[in-house]
Amino acid sequence: MVNPADRSGWLANEHPQEECGVLGIYAPREDVARMAFFGLYALQHRGQEAAGIAVADGREIRMHKDSGLVSQVFSPARISALTGDFAIGHVRYSTAGSSSLRNAQPYLIDTQYGQIAVAHNGNLVNASQLRSSMLRNGVGFSSSSDSEVLTMMLAGASGGDWFERIRQTMQHWQGAYSLVILTRDQLFAVRDPWGIRPLTVGMLPNGGHAVASESGALRTLGCQAIREVKPGEIIMLTDTALRVAQAIPPASETALCTFEHIYFSRPDSFWDGQSVHQVRQRLGEQLAREAAVPADVVIPVPDSSIPAAIGYARQSGIPYNDGFIKNRYIGRTFIEPTDSLRKMGVTLKYNVINENILNQRVVVIDDSIVRGNTTRPLVKLLQDAGAREVHLRITCPPIRHPCFMGVDMGTYEELAAHRHSLEEIRRFSGADSLAYLSLEGMMNAIGRSNGYCNACFTGQYPFPVDAHVAKTGFEKPEGEPA
Amino acid sequence: MVNPADRSGWLANEHPQEECGVLGIYAPREDVARMAFFGLYALQHRGQEAAGIAVADGREIRMHKDSGLVSQVFSPARISALTGDFAIGHVRYSTAGSSSLRNAQPYLIDTQYGQIAVAHNGNLVNASQLRSSMLRNGVGFSSSSDSEVLTMMLAGASGGDWFERIRQTMQHWQGAYSLVILTRDQLFAVRDPWGIRPLTVGMLPNGGHAVASESGALRTLGCQAIREVKPGEIIMLTDTALRVAQAIPPASETALCTFEHIYFSRPDSFWDGQSVHQVRQRLGEQLAREAAVPADVVIPVPDSSIPAAIGYARQSGIPYNDGFIKNRYIGRTFIEPTDSLRKMGVTLKYNVINENILNQRVVVIDDSIVRGNTTRPLVKLLQDAGAREVHLRITCPPIRHPCFMGVDMGTYEELAAHRHSLEEIRRFSGADSLAYLSLEGMMNAIGRSNGYCNACFTGQYPFPVDAHVAKTGFEKPEGEPA
Amino acid sequence: MVNPADRSGWLANEHPQEECGVLGIYAPREDVARMAFFGLYALQHRGQEAAGIAVADGREIRMHKDSGLVSQVFSPARISALTGDFAIGHVRYSTAGSSSLRNAQPYLIDTQYGQIAVAHNGNLVNASQLRSSMLRNGVGFSSSSDSEVLTMMLAGASGGDWFERIRQTMQHWQGAYSLVILTRDQLFAVRDPWGIRPLTVGMLPNGGHAVASESGALRTLGCQAIREVKPGEIIMLTDTALRVAQAIPPASETALCTFEHIYFSRPDSFWDGQSVHQVRQRLGEQLAREAAVPADVVIPVPDSSIPAAIGYARQSGIPYNDGFIKNRYIGRTFIEPTDSLRKMGVTLKYNVINENILNQRVVVIDDSIVRGNTTRPLVKLLQDAGAREVHLRITCPPIRHPCFMGVDMGTYEELAAHRHSLEEIRRFSGADSLAYLSLEGMMNAIGRSNGYCNACFTGQYPFPVDAHVAKTGFEKPEGEPA
Amino acid sequence: MVNPADRSGWLANEHPQEECGVLGIYAPREDVARMAFFGLYALQHRGQEAAGIAVADGREIRMHKDSGLVSQVFSPARISALTGDFAIGHVRYSTAGSSSLRNAQPYLIDTQYGQIAVAHNGNLVNASQLRSSMLRNGVGFSSSSDSEVLTMMLAGASGGDWFERIRQTMQHWQGAYSLVILTRDQLFAVRDPWGIRPLTVGMLPNGGHAVASESGALRTLGCQAIREVKPGEIIMLTDTALRVAQAIPPASETALCTFEHIYFSRPDSFWDGQSVHQVRQRLGEQLAREAAVPADVVIPVPDSSIPAAIGYARQSGIPYNDGFIKNRYIGRTFIEPTDSLRKMGVTLKYNVINENILNQRVVVIDDSIVRGNTTRPLVKLLQDAGAREVHLRITCPPIRHPCFMGVDMGTYEELAAHRHSLEEIRRFSGADSLAYLSLEGMMNAIGRSNGYCNACFTGQYPFPVDAHVAKTGFEKPEGEPA
Repeated sequence: MVNPADRSGWLANEHPQEECGVLGIYAPREDVARMAFFGLYALQHRGQEAAGIAVADGREIRMHKDSGLVSQVFSPARISALTGDFAIGHVRYSTAGSSSLRNAQPYLIDTQYGQIAVAHNGNLVNASQLRSSMLRNGVGFSSSSDSEVLTMMLAGASGGDWFERIRQTMQHWQGAYSLVILTRDQLFAVRDPWGIRPLTVGMLPNGGHAVASESGALRTLGCQAIREVKPGEIIMLTDTALRVAQAIPPASETALCTFEHIYFSRPDSFWDGQSVHQVRQRLGEQLAREAAVPADVVIPVPDSSIPAAIGYARQSGIPYNDGFIKNRYIGRTFIEPTDSLRKMGVTLKYNVINENILNQRVVVIDDSIVRGNTTRPLVKLLQDAGAREVHLRITCPPIRHPCFMGVDMGTYEELAAHRHSLEEIRRFSGADSLAYLSLEGMMNAIGRSNGYCNACFTGQYPFPVDAHVAKTGFEKPEGEPA
Repeated sequence: MVNPADRSGWLANEHPQEECGVLGIYAPREDVARMAFFGLYALQHRGQEAAGIAVADGREIRMHKDSGLVSQVFSPARISALTGDFAIGHVRYSTAGSSSLRNAQPYLIDTQYGQIAVAHNGNLVNASQLRSSMLRNGVGFSSSSDSEVLTMMLAGASGGDWFERIRQTMQHWQGAYSLVILTRDQLFAVRDPWGIRPLTVGMLPNGGHAVASESGALRTLGCQAIREVKPGEIIMLTDTALRVAQAIPPASETALCTFEHIYFSRPDSFWDGQSVHQVRQRLGEQLAREAAVPADVVIPVPDSSIPAAIGYARQSGIPYNDGFIKNRYIGRTFIEPTDSLRKMGVTLKYNVINENILNQRVVVIDDSIVRGNTTRPLVKLLQDAGAREVHLRITCPPIRHPCFMGVDMGTYEELAAHRHSLEEIRRFSGADSLAYLSLEGMMNAIGRSNGYCNACFTGQYPFPVDAHVAKTGFEKPEGEPA
Repeated sequence: MVNPADRSGWLANEHPQEECGVLGIYAPREDVARMAFFGLYALQHRGQEAAGIAVADGREIRMHKDSGLVSQVFSPARISALTGDFAIGHVRYSTAGSSSLRNAQPYLIDTQYGQIAVAHNGNLVNASQLRSSMLRNGVGFSSSSDSEVLTMMLAGASGGDWFERIRQTMQHWQGAYSLVILTRDQLFAVRDPWGIRPLTVGMLPNGGHAVASESGALRTLGCQAIREVKPGEIIMLTDTALRVAQAIPPASETALCTFEHIYFSRPDSFWDGQSVHQVRQRLGEQLAREAAVPADVVIPVPDSSIPAAIGYARQSGIPYNDGFIKNRYIGRTFIEPTDSLRKMGVTLKYNVINENILNQRVVVIDDSIVRGNTTRPLVKLLQDAGAREVHLRITCPPIRHPCFMGVDMGTYEELAAHRHSLEEIRRFSGADSLAYLSLEGMMNAIGRSNGYCNACFTGQYPFPVDAHVAKTGFEKPEGEPA
Repeated sequence: MVNPADRSGWLANEHPQEECGVLGIYAPREDVARMAFFGLYALQHRGQEAAGIAVADGREIRMHKDSGLVSQVFSPARISALTGDFAIGHVRYSTAGSSSLRNAQPYLIDTQYGQIAVAHNGNLVNASQLRSSMLRNGVGFSSSSDSEVLTMMLAGASGGDWFERIRQTMQHWQGAYSLVILTRDQLFAVRDPWGIRPLTVGMLPNGGHAVASESGALRTLGCQAIREVKPGEIIMLTDTALRVAQAIPPASETALCTFEHIYFSRPDSFWDGQSVHQVRQRLGEQLAREAAVPADVVIPVPDSSIPAAIGYARQSGIPYNDGFIKNRYIGRTFIEPTDSLRKMGVTLKYNVINENILNQRVVVIDDSIVRGNTTRPLVKLLQDAGAREVHLRITCPPIRHPCFMGVDMGTYEELAAHRHSLEEIRRFSGADSLAYLSLEGMMNAIGRSNGYCNACFTGQYPFPVDAHVAKTGFEKPEGEPA
C-alpha cells in the first residue's frame, strides 16, 4: 500500500487497464469507415492511447492509425479517404511513455496470399516461445507485441484459404485472443477457445454485419440479432448471412473474464448473455447482504460503481446519493500540484458534495482495489467533508494475482491484497470498515457457478502460465524495435 | 421545435450556454499560476472555448491565453513562466466559429496608471451605448466584446487609486458583471449591484485569499471561510485580511440568476448560501409533488439532472436508476453520421441501458428545454429501447424569454416555449406526458420568495432592456476586429 | 567584437534586421487573398516572424494572422475564407522570444468611422510621446508597438473622409512609415515625407492596382507601370486609376534608406529608380577601384553579396567563383553544437568548397559588418580550407550608429565599428586585410550625391532623435500587454 | 513535353529525385546523436521527406524518425534522449502522398541475433524476386520497400558474426546499395560491388570515425583522412582504426552514378576522387566549347547550375551574371495560383532580374531536362523580361532511359527526350537554341573514360534489368502496408 501522499498516486488510475477494443464491419452499401469511427467511439473506454481503422474495397487495404483518442486520430478527410466495403478498427489502452504509435493497431502486412490487417484484444501466454521460434527461422520483428507474432504467423500459415489458415494457426495459440482479420475482400472474427475476452456479432439494419468487443458498440451502430462469437469460432462476415465455423473445440471449461462484469464493459453491454448494468446492480445487492452496516447514505465512486451503489442502496434501504463529483475535463494534463498545494488539499479528479456527507455515516461503493494508491485519498476527502463514518465496500474479492490474459493489473509486488492483509488495507485506507464481496457472492450475483476466469482472485489460471514468460506482454524493454 | 433528424440538432447542446468563469488568487508564498490552473480546472464546466491566466509579481503582469480546454492551453512550461504573487484566470464558453482566440480573456492593456488585466463573467446591457460614446471620443476597439468596453473604461477612469477608479466606473455599468481586476501589485474582485452572476471569496490555508465564480473552485484550492462577494462590493485581496468596500449600494431588489441552481453551477458549489446539489434534489422532490405519475423507474438525463432525479425518486417512491449512458469522450469531433447512418440509429452522445427501460413506464428528469432540438431524440431512444411509457419532467418552468445578462439562451425565435404551447412541445417530443415545474414550486424548492432573476421564465427583467441593443453581446458580426 | 567561439554568434545573423514588408491589392475580379499570399511570399525576406492578411469586401474586413512563415500561416482553407476585393498584408521580421503573435500585423480595429486595418513598415521616433499623450486621455494599449499608436491615432482623427483623416494624422508623425490602410471599401498607401522606407505601386494586368514595399513583389503579381509612392503622398487604389494626393510636402531633403541598396531589397527590385542588382554590382566595382589587392579569386558571402562580388571580379579582372555553400534548410533549429563539436569545426550555416580556396589568395565580399560576431568564423573557415591570404572587402562604410527608423542594427554598445578601430576589427577577424567602401564611393556607385539617410555611417539623422525615446521600438519590456 | 500551363508543372521539380542520404558515426566520447543531427543536416539536399536517427549504447538501440525536415523531426529533447556511442541516420527524398512515415528509415528490427537498424541509399533491382521468395517462406512485409527486404534478409542470414552475415547476404543483392548497419555494439558501412551510390568514411578529430553518403557531410563533422568505401567493401567503424574487408570482389566494370556529378552531390563534396564543384565548372567549360553561341550574358538556373555557368562564362569569355532569383522560402506550400493569376504571370519559384536580361542575348545553363515541364516557363520568364535571344545549354546528354538504381527519373513515357526529338523540345521550350553536352564531352570533363553508369543517357545498364520488375521501387500501390 502506497503512501497516500505519493506523487505517483495523484493521477493514477486505481483500476485494471484493459488492453484494447476491436471492431469489424461489412456494409457494402454504407460508409464503412464512418461506421467504424462511431463504433470505435463507443469502445473508447477500452483504450485511449491509440486508434486505427483499416478498410478494404475488394482490391486493396488502406489504413490510418495514430496515437490519441478516436476523435483526435480521425478527421473528416481521413475518414473520407478510407473507402471500401469492409473495415476493421482498434483502440488501445493508455500506457506511459512514447511507445504509443509503434503499438497502434491494426497491423497491416503483405503476405504471400496478399494483404492482411489484424486487430487483437487479449494476450497470448505462449507468445514468447512462438516469437523465439520464428526469430530462429529468420523472421525479424518490429515490436515486442504478441499481436505482431500472431499476425506474422498468419503470413506463414498454410492452407487453401484464409478460413483454413486461421484455423490451423489457432492450434498454436494459447491465451486470450478476440481478433478481427481483414483481407482485401474478406473479414473474419475469431475468438479463443476459452472465450476469455468478449466478442459479439450482429446484423446491420441495411444489410451486412458488424462485430465488436462489446454489444454496446453494436447497438450504437443500430445492430440487431446480436450474439457472441463463441469460444473457438471463426465467423466470416458477409452481406446476407454469417458463415460460422467451430474452428477448434471450445475449452472443456471456458474462462470468461469476470472483470468485464466488474469494471471493463459499458453498462449497456451484454457479457455472457447478461446486462452488465444489471449484473453490477446485483453485485451491489449481494454486497449489501454480505456486508451490511448501519449508515445514512450510500454513494458510488463514479462512474463504474454507480449501478452497484444503486443496488446496495435498494437492498439495504439506505438512501442512495451522489457524494463525489468527477471532473470530466481531466484529459491528459501533465501539470501536478506542488507538495504544498497537495497538503492544502488541492484536488483534481474528485470533489466532494460536502452537504451530502457532513455528519453522515457513509457507505462508499468501489468496484475494485488494485494497487491501493487512490483509496486513502478518497476516504480522506470524505472525512475532511465531515463524514461521521466511512464504510468501504468493494464489489469483488481481493485481487491477489496478476492477469496474463490481456489486462494490466500490475505485478504481484504491486497488488495491495497480495502484500497486505485486509485489516492492513483498511487501516491504511483510514476507513472505519472495509469489506470485499465474497467469490461465491460475486458468482451468485453473476448467476453462474463456473465458466469464468477468476485467476486474479484465486490464482487458478485457465492453463499453465509461466509467469516470467507471460509477463513480457507488459514489460516491454525501452529500446525495443520501433 | 426542430425536426429530430435535423443535422444541427445532432450535437447541439440543449442547455443554455454560460458565458464564463473567473478566478483570482493572492498567495505570496505559493505558485499562484499553478493554483490558478487548478482553480480554472474546477471552473471548466463554465466555459470550454478558451482559457487564460495573468500573473503579477509587483512589477509587471505576464499573461498566457489561448483557445482550448485549460489542460490544452497550459503546459508545465507555460505555468512555470508565470511567476508572481497575484493571478487572475478566465474560462470562456464554447461557441461555433473561429473567433475563440480573439475573445479569450483576461484582457491585458497598458493604461496611464500602468498595466491592468481584467476577467469578466456577465454581460453589460448598456455596453453598446458606452462603446459608441468611446468610439466617438476616438478610441478604437479590437473586438465587439462588452468586456473590452469595460476594460477600456477603466483605462480612462479618474481617481487617485484603483479602488476609486473602479468605484467611479461602476456607476456607468448596467448589467451583470462579476469581475477580477489585476494590476501589477493589486487584485480586486467586483460584483454588480444586482448580484446577477456568482462570485465568492475565501481564505487560503497558507495565507492569502482567492476569489472564484463558484465556491466549488475555492474548495478545490483548499479555501475556508468562504463567503460571497456581495452585490455592489469591491474586495481587494491581501495577505492577511480582505479589504472590503460597498462601492455602490446593492439594488433594492437583487436579481440572482436562478439558472445557477437549475443547471450552471457545480453540484458541490453554494449559490445564495445553499448547496446546489440539495436545491436540485428539492427541485426534483417538488416536481414529484406537482407532477406525479404512476411509473416503474425514474431516470435522469446525465449529468446535471441526477440530483433532481434522486429527489423525484425519493419523494415519489418510484425506484431511481440509470437509463442513459453519456459518452465521456465526445470532445470536439467534426465527424457526423450520414443520413443513412442516422436513420439506422447511430448515436453518439447517449446510449440507453435497454434492460432498465424495456417494458417500463419511465419518468425522465431533465433540467430545462431551451430550443427543444434534443428532446425528441432522447424520448425516441427510450421508446426504441422498449419503454412502455415516457413521462418527461422538467425541473424549471418553460423558458419563454432570452437572457441579456450573460447567458446564451438563444433568441425569442429559437425558444421552443416561446413559439409553441406545452401540448405542442409534448407532441413533438413524442413523450406520453410532459410537465414543467411551476415558478412557485421552483422558488419553494430554492427556499426564497424573491431576490432572483426569473426573466427567462417571466419576461420581467431586473432593469429595462432594449432587446435590440442588449443582444449585441451574442450577435457578433463575422468580420469583427480580431 | 565578440569572441568568435561565443555561443550567441553561432546562428546569429550578422546583418541588420528589417522591420517588415507591406502589401496592398485592389483587384475586384480576382482572388485578392491568394494574390496577397503570393505577394507576401515575395516579401518574405523582409520578415520571417509573422504574417497576416486582411481582406475587405465592401461591407466588412476579415483577417488572419499568425506567427510563422507565409506558407505556414496560410492554408488553402484560410485563403479561401478571405473573400473580397481589397487586401492588405504584412510580414514581420524575426526576433527572439515569444512575442511574435502579439506584434503580428495588420492591426484591425473598430472606429467611430467603421473598421480599419493597418500594416506598417518603419518606426515613428516620436511614438513614445504620442502614446503617453493618448494614455493620459484614457486610451488603453494592448502592445508597446508604434504601429498600434499610429492605428489608434487614426481611430481618433477628425475629418470628413479617410483621405482627410490620414492627412491630418500624418502631421503628427515623425519618423519612417510606409503604410497600407484598409477600410471596408477603400485602400490607401501612405509614405512619410522623408521617404525613408520604400513603397511602390503598380497596375495589375486585369485591372486594379497593387502596392508593395518592393517592386519585386509587384512584378511577381504581374504588375506594370510601377512607380514609387512619393514622399508625403497618399494614394488611393481604385479599379481604373490611382487617386494620388501630395498630403504633406516632402521633406526639403529626403532620407531614403541606403541599406535597401546594400542589403535589404531583393536584387530584382528597384529602389530610387535603380535596379538593386545593378547598384550592388557597381558597389563591387567601386570597391575594386578603392581597395584593390592582388588575388586569385573573388568570392561572395552568399546570397546578398553575390552581385557585388561579380562587380568586384569584373572590375579587378580577378576570377569570380563560389567559395561558400550556404545551407538552405537551416529553418528554425534550436539544436546547437556542443563546445566539443564546435571545436571540432562542426559548421551549420556555411561550408567551404575547399578546392576553390586551397592555396589561393581570396577576396571575400560581404555587404556589411554590424556586430562582428560572424566575421571571424567565416575567415577561419577559409583559412582552414588552405587559403593563402584572405582579404575582406565590405560594400559599405563602417556602421557606427544605430538606426531609429525601423531597422534593428543593435545599440551603440553592440556595433563593432563603434567600439573598435578598423585595425582592431581586422585583427579580430583574422583577415590579412580589411577594407570598407568609402561613403563617397558608395554614393558614386548609387549615382546620387544626396537624398539618402546615411545616419548609421555618419550619425547625421534626418531629424533630431532622442536616442532614449527612439529606442523603445526595439526595447520591449518582457511583460508588455499581449 | 507537358503543356507549360499544366498545373502539375507549377511546383514540379524538373530534376531527378535522389532516393536518400545515409550516415553513421562511432564517437565514444561525444554526443553522437547531436553529431548525427548535424551530419544529416548536411545531407538534407538528398532527401526532404523524412529523417531518422538510431543510436546504440552497447546494450540496446533507440530510434526516432518522422516525416519532415531534419530540423523539424528532431527537437533538443529528442536528441538528448538518444544516448550512446554509435549512431546511424537517414534522410529520404520527397514524394507526393501520405506514405512518408511508413517509408522513413532507419528500419529497426529484432532478430535472432539481437536488434539491428539499417539505413539504405540505392535500389535493389532484384528486390521483387527476393521479396517473393521470402513471402513464400511465410515472412510478412509491412512496406513494399526494397530496404525492408534487405533488412529482413539480414535477420535470416547465417554466419557466426555480423561481418559474415552481411558478407553472405551481399551475394544475393543485385543493384545499388550504400548501407549503414547498426547493432547494439557495432556499426558497419557497406557498398555494392558496382559502387553505384557514393559512400565515404573519415576519421573524427577526437577519435572514432564517421561514414556518410557525401564527403561534404563528413567535413561538416570535422572529419579528416576521408576516403570512399570501395565497391564491395564492408567497413566496421571502431575507435582507433577501421576494420576493412573486401567482402565481395568489385564488379569488373564499376558503375558510378554520373548524376552525382551533374546534380545530386553538394558542390563541396568529392565523387570518385574529384571535387564536384570543379567537375561542374569543367562541364560548363566543355559545353562552351561544344555549343558556343554569340551572346551577352551567361546565367545559371540556381542553385545547381551555378558552377557550370561560371565555367561556361570563363571559357566563352561571355560575362557571367545572375538572371533568376530563387525564392528561398518556398517550403511545402499547397497554395497554387489560379489560372487567371498564372496567366497574369504570377510566379512563385523564380523571379527574373529584368535589368540583367533586357535586350540581352542570354545563355541559360541548366543541369538537365527530365520531364521538361519547367523548361518552357523558365524561358518565358526571360522572354517576358525582354531577352533578345535565349540559348538553353544543358550540362549533360539527353535523358532517354529510366534509372533503376535508386533515382526517380520517371518512366519512359515521362521522359521528354524519350518521346521527343531535340528540335521538338527546343520548339516546345521556346528557346532560340538548345544544346546538350555530348556523352564524350561529359566524360572528358569528368576526366574518366569508363567506370560510370550512363544508362539514363545510353540505356546500357550495368546488369540486366527487367524493367517491369525493377520499377516496383517507384510504383508503390496506394494501399500498401503501413
